[in-house]
Amino acid sequence: MKNVITYINSNNNRYISELKDFLRIPSISITLKHKKDMIKSADFVAKKLKEAGIQKVKVIKTKGNPLVYAEWLGAPGKPTVLIYGHYDVQPVDPLELWDTPPFDPTVKNGKIYARGATDDKGQIFMHIKSVEAFLKTAGKLPLNIKFVIEGEEEIGSRNLQNFVNKNSKLLKCDAILISDTALFGPGIPTITYGLRGIAYMEIEVTGPNRDLHSGTFGGAVANPINILAGMISKLMNKDGHITIPGFYDDVIKITKSEKENIKKLKFSEKNYAKTLGVKELKGEKTYSTLERTWIRPTLDCNGIIGGFTDKGAKTVIPSKVTAKISMRLVPNQDPIKIAKLFTKYIKQITPKSVTVKVNDLHGGYPIVVSLNDKATIAASKAIARAFGKKTVFMREGGSIPIVITFAKKLKASPVLMGLGLNTENLHSPNEHFNLNHFHLGILSSAFFFDEFSK
Amino acid sequence: MKNVITYINSNNNRYISELKDFLRIPSISITLKHKKDMIKSADFVAKKLKEAGIQKVKVIKTKGNPLVYAEWLGAPGKPTVLIYGHYDVQPVDPLELWDTPPFDPTVKNGKIYARGATDDKGQIFMHIKSVEAFLKTAGKLPLNIKFVIEGEEEIGSRNLQNFVNKNSKLLKCDAILISDTALFGPGIPTITYGLRGIAYMEIEVTGPNRDLHSGTFGGAVANPINILAGMISKLMNKDGHITIPGFYDDVIKITKSEKENIKKLKFSEKNYAKTLGVKELKGEKTYSTLERTWIRPTLDCNGIIGGFTDKGAKTVIPSKVTAKISMRLVPNQDPIKIAKLFTKYIKQITPKSVTVKVNDLHGGYPIVVSLNDKATIAASKAIARAFGKKTVFMREGGSIPIVITFAKKLKASPVLMGLGLNTENLHSPNEHFNLNHFHLGILSSAFFFDEFSK
Repeated sequence: MKNVITYINSNNNRYISELKDFLRIPSISITLKHKKDMIKSADFVAKKLKEAGIQKVKVIKTKGNPLVYAEWLGAPGKPTVLIYGHYDVQPVDPLELWDTPPFDPTVKNGKIYARGATDDKGQIFMHIKSVEAFLKTAGKLPLNIKFVIEGEEEIGSRNLQNFVNKNSKLLKCDAILISDTALFGPGIPTITYGLRGIAYMEIEVTGPNRDLHSGTFGGAVANPINILAGMISKLMNKDGHITIPGFYDDVIKITKSEKENIKKLKFSEKNYAKTLGVKELKGEKTYSTLERTWIRPTLDCNGIIGGFTDKGAKTVIPSKVTAKISMRLVPNQDPIKIAKLFTKYIKQITPKSVTVKVNDLHGGYPIVVSLNDKATIAASKAIARAFGKKTVFMREGGSIPIVITFAKKLKASPVLMGLGLNTENLHSPNEHFNLNHFHLGILSSAFFFDEFSK
Repeated sequence: MKNVITYINSNNNRYISELKDFLRIPSISITLKHKKDMIKSADFVAKKLKEAGIQKVKVIKTKGNPLVYAEWLGAPGKPTVLIYGHYDVQPVDPLELWDTPPFDPTVKNGKIYARGATDDKGQIFMHIKSVEAFLKTAGKLPLNIKFVIEGEEEIGSRNLQNFVNKNSKLLKCDAILISDTALFGPGIPTITYGLRGIAYMEIEVTGPNRDLHSGTFGGAVANPINILAGMISKLMNKDGHITIPGFYDDVIKITKSEKENIKKLKFSEKNYAKTLGVKELKGEKTYSTLERTWIRPTLDCNGIIGGFTDKGAKTVIPSKVTAKISMRLVPNQDPIKIAKLFTKYIKQITPKSVTVKVNDLHGGYPIVVSLNDKATIAASKAIARAFGKKTVFMREGGSIPIVITFAKKLKASPVLMGLGLNTENLHSPNEHFNLNHFHLGILSSAFFFDEFSK
């Protein structure tokens, strides 16, 4: 391990320079406009895997963006780790709020600023570079490695789902290592043992067949915006409890010991609120902020648009208004069932004066991993070695829908060893990644290979 | 009058051709992008007034778009009529819903399609052309005429307000003739004796200081869209009654006889709903549709935008959401007072978890004119002569804020002799004007000069 560590430490600057090249590719998956960049990004990943010393690297076409698959199976009898990550990134709007261009990676105060820096290009790069360190020093790894890097995580991973379902033999492994989550705080080695699921819906409310003059027609017809606002307000009660009938039916109650564990974590609500610029934190009554974001399901409007939205005052009753609404789910909620309950309830509360269309845009299952799992134990030891501190265990409010597919289909445990921070503006302007964590992440990855091979 | 009528009838095609030239100018006042078109439009009006035979025509600069003032005072001892109209038009979005380009006037089935056709270019043009008919035949008018044509009606007429306040001597008159309203139905001669006022507000709700990942932060903070939806839903109760404290305090109750008059009008709720493409008409309980749009105040969201609004699914809790909300007012509601009550109530119902900004974008007073007014009687006779039918009296739900300023400042009665139709898509795609009504409007204008001069 000594040579591996020395290699990682002495190649740090080159690693950062290569990461910059990766971040320069605007691989936004939500729009077809970046189709070429998706291919470019997949090719880049494949090239870096080859440069790391892996011979078997393939870029696999899908109906959407290509997958990158790679394997190094030179340790017969030893366990196999499947490393998953994604090269696609979130959109960049509102662009005007970025201090530096999102695809012109800029290092400031030990952080690298770019879209995808922490979510997830910076994090998959850590594993490619730890593999490189082994293969360029020892010429081999202490266990077997497979890589699956996709380009559709931000849009629901549909093609990877298909691929996993059809290729469980190819992907067979003992653990799935994923770095797409966050540390509990800067410098705190963390393993995430739970993720929320998601049901992402879109509602379109239509009133009159065209935009109407709000003077002439004001009072004659139901206004779709007012109606939709009323409907949204009926999705949660005053206590932040979601009012969709049956919504909580399958929610597993948190155990006493887990509640205690969460309580023990050093978390300042005051600082957290300050960072977010809000006067008070707010959510479901009787739960703490960590509980609300980790172990409780939630509902949020992600966007709304209708009527006249430019500067000034146009007097219309709009024909149509659209809202995007997503729910974060916890074990054992089923996104398909939740989408159905949501749709049923929305139709039920839609007044006769308008029509409604509900679309299920995408869904993902929640997951919780046992803390006694062999891979989780190895990961917690590995990251503790890298950071020189005791590992903290947390859950995460976000969703990585593919994790559950991997776990179910491959019958292997996922290990969520993320090196990001929730304050690193993933999905927001000025996304960045702490370069110290990037470096510690490469070491953690190397230590994990060592620990899990024992 | 015989020669005047013959002139109007025989010049009809040229009038339409000239109107097309007027409609080709994209004089959208809401944006500064069309600054040049506003000047072009004012110059066009001035040119047409001169061509009609009026010598004293002036284009008057303001802080905003220019005014056109003209006068023909060759009938000493006779009454003076001030004719008001506006050359500015509404924006054209959504452009994709127009069947023909909004600034490429197209005649189809006896209707002319273009932005501004009925609101208000087609309607001011009627009066310019009736004046032309008198001056080109008799060489004189039976009474004195003043024109004030502005370019800021669609954005609140602020500069005209100033001009009227400072120039009451110049504008002195016995009646103010305005054609910017609608007939009760096709072929029905109509005088409008009431207009609603308006208070147009904008609310901006801000939560966290940036867009947040809705997975990681969902449950931690109040979501501005959900909050705003809740606030909007608190502006009206289930019965469509506005819940802003004090909102109805100054509303004058409708008299029995007016209620009877409205009941007598031939109005099919069924056909009206069908035209608008809604399953049911909806508004304040216990009032009929005509009452709700004419004599009752209303509240409508005119636009809303926040968060992710493109196609697909971005998982954000937005930092900010904005809604435009306007209220239509009836006598004796005061838009300034209503704006204050609205602002106070909004601040009161804003939870501590977000911040709110309320902007008063513009306001206008409501008005009702006596049916015994001399000018109103003359107008009702004039339009009946042109149409060969008995005149119907109605109120209108829309607002022409400048009307009250004229009436108060000049101590003269407004006469609302509009030739449009509420189904002519003013403020919507495919705005048009019935060319038969355009022709009858020119005749009505000529007959009004005759009747009012008696």
